[in-house]
Amino acid sequence: MVESRDDPTVGELSEGAILARILERLPGSSAEVGPGDDAAVLAAADGRIVASVDTLVHGPDFRLAWSSGFDLGFKAAAVNLADIAAMGATPTALLVALAMPDSTRLSFVTALAEGLRSACEELAPGCAVEGGDLTVSDTLTVAVTALGALAGRPPVRRSGARPGDVVAVAGTLGRADRGLRVLFERFTDAAGAPVPVDERSLSEAERDDVRAQLRPSPPVALGPVAADAGATAMMDVSDGLLLDASRLATASGVTLSLDSTALGHDVAAALTGGEDHALLATFPAAPAVPPGFHRVGAVLPPSEHAVLVDGAPPTGRSGWDPYRDWDARTG
Amino acid sequence: MVESRDDPTVGELSEGAILARILERLPGSSAEVGPGDDAAVLAAADGRIVASVDTLVHGPDFRLAWSSGFDLGFKAAAVNLADIAAMGATPTALLVALAMPDSTRLSFVTALAEGLRSACEELAPGCAVEGGDLTVSDTLTVAVTALGALAGRPPVRRSGARPGDVVAVAGTLGRADRGLRVLFERFTDAAGAPVPVDERSLSEAERDDVRAQLRPSPPVALGPVAADAGATAMMDVSDGLLLDASRLATASGVTLSLDSTALGHDVAAALTGGEDHALLATFPAAPAVPPGFHRVGAVLPPSEHAVLVDGAPPTGRSGWDPYRDWDARTG
Repeated sequence: MVESRDDPTVGELSEGAILARILERLPGSSAEVGPGDDAAVLAAADGRIVASVDTLVHGPDFRLAWSSGFDLGFKAAAVNLADIAAMGATPTALLVALAMPDSTRLSFVTALAEGLRSACEELAPGCAVEGGDLTVSDTLTVAVTALGALAGRPPVRRSGARPGDVVAVAGTLGRADRGLRVLFERFTDAAGAPVPVDERSLSEAERDDVRAQLRPSPPVALGPVAADAGATAMMDVSDGLLLDASRLATASGVTLSLDSTALGHDVAAALTGGEDHALLATFPAAPAVPPGFHRVGAVLPPSEHAVLVDGAPPTGRSGWDPYRDWDARTG
Repeated sequence: MVESRDDPTVGELSEGAILARILERLPGSSAEVGPGDDAAVLAAADGRIVASVDTLVHGPDFRLAWSSGFDLGFKAAAVNLADIAAMGATPTALLVALAMPDSTRLSFVTALAEGLRSACEELAPGCAVEGGDLTVSDTLTVAVTALGALAGRPPVRRSGARPGDVVAVAGTLGRADRGLRVLFERFTDAAGAPVPVDERSLSEAERDDVRAQLRPSPPVALGPVAADAGATAMMDVSDGLLLDASRLATASGVTLSLDSTALGHDVAAALTGGEDHALLATFPAAPAVPPGFHRVGAVLPPSEHAVLVDGAPPTGRSGWDPYRDWDARTG
C-alpha cells in the first residue's frame, strides 16, 4: 500500500482512521451517547422528535469542480436544517451517511466535516453531528438526517392554511437559481463539463448568487419564530416557489395568490428557483407577520388553480423535479 | 416521453408518482406527522431518542443480479434495526433516503418498499417508515435512519464490559458470510460478474446461508431483553465477531476471551463473518444469560490482546473494512 504522503485517499486508509479525522473536526457532543457506538442517544425533552432526511448526490445535486468539500458539507447540513425549521422546530442533531469513491482525498472529507460543523454553528447553534456512517461508492453521496425539537409547540404542517391568511416568505428566493445559471454559463468547458469557479471574474451580485447555490443560508432560526407567531402552515422552498406553494395550497385545500411585486427584481427566478431554502408560511391576517418574514400574497378559497400570480394562473415551467429534469448526458 | 407500459422506469415518472406508489406499500403511520410533510414528528415517550444510520451501496454492499428489490429493502431495514436493538432499544421509525438511476424499474422500487415493510413487521412490529427522500444517482444507494425508544432503560453501550462478565451472542454467526461465498463461487460468470441465483441448484443449508446474506434476520427483539437482563455492554456484529469483539473490548478496557467450541461447526466463518448482525453482549456472571443468548466466552482483565480465542491471540484476517477490502475491479 503506497500512501500519498501529504493527502492520502480514503482508499489508502482504514475506516477507523478516516472516522478519527472526521470526528476531530466535529465539536464535542452533549448527547447521552454521541458518535462511536451502534447508535446515538439524544434528548427529546418534550417527548417528541422531528426527523427528516435529504440526500445530495454527485451529478444531479452538486459538481466537484464547483463545490469544495466545505461547500458540500455546509449545503448538506443547511438543506436539512431548513426542513426541521419548516415544522417550527429547532434542529438538535444530524446523522451523516457519507458514501464516497476510494479515490476521494482525505482533505476533501475533513473539509466536508468542517462544512457540516460551520453550518450548524451559523444556522442552528446547539445542533451537532451525533452519528453517521461511512461507506464506499462509485458516486459521492451525502445523506443527512436532521432531528429537531418542538419544545412543546404543535408542529406547523403544510395543511393548515386558511382563506384570509397572509402568505409570507423568510429568506431569499431565486438567488441560488441565478447562481446555478452563472455556473453553467461561465464555468463549463466547450463540452459542457464544469470547470473550477474563478470568483475574481464575477461581479459582487454574481458572487452572492453563486455562494447561495453552493452554500445556501436558509433562515433556520425563523422556523420556531413563525410557529410562535401563529403560522398556520409552513414549508421550505426547495423546488421553487410556484411548485412548493402549489403543494402547500393542495395540502391545505386553498388557493395561494402571490403578488409578483413582492418578489424582487427577478420575478422569474423567485417563482421557479428553489435551492435557497427560504421558508414559505401562512399567518392569520392580524397581527402582522413576524420580523424576518415579508408578505408575498394571500390565501384564497379553493379554486381551479392551486396558485395564482397577480390573479392569473402561472404559465411555463414551475419548478424542479429531479426525475423529469436531470439528464446525465447534458447535466 | 415514451413509457414502458407495464413497468415504467423511474425516469419516466414524476417524483410524486413514484412516491405515491411507494407510500401505498407502506403501512399507515401512527406518528403525529408521518410521511408527506417537510419532516416527521414522532413520539419519544421517555424524553430520549435512539438514532442510527447505515447505508447500502450497489457494488460493495449488494449486487442487483443477486438481490431483488424486496431483498434490498429488507436488508436495509434489518441492518439498521439491529443497531437500535444493540443499544437495548426498540425500533420505532425508519427514514429512507433512496438514490437511484432513472433506469430503475418501478417494480423494483415497489418491491423495495415491500421489503422495508416486511422487515419491520417481522423484526420490529410497531416500527414503520415515517419519512424519506428520493433522488437520482448513477449508483443505487439506500441510506436508512432508524430511530428507537429505550422506555426508560439506560442505553447499553460498548464500554461497560467488566472482568468476570460472561460474553454471549444472540442470532447466527457466519451464515451470511458463507452465503456470500456461495454467491461468488456459484453465481458469477467467467469474468467474475454476478449472475442470478438459481435456488434449485442449492442444498437446503446453502439456501439458508444465501438467504442470510441477502435478507438477514437479526434478533432485534432480544436487544431490550438483554438490557432488561442487565447486559453490561452490547453491539451488533456487522464486521465479524473478532473485529467487533475487539472493538467492544477496547471500548470497555478489557480482554474478551472466546471459546471456539461455542461457535458452531464453522468456526472460521463465525469469527470473521459479520453480516448476520447477531447481537454480542456481556452479562454479569449470575444470573444466567437471558433466553435467546448463548455463552461464547468470558471477560478478562485488560491484556496485550483485545480478544483471545481458546486462550490465544487470533491469527489471520479479522473482519471486513470497506475501505481496505472493496475493489471495484474485482468485486
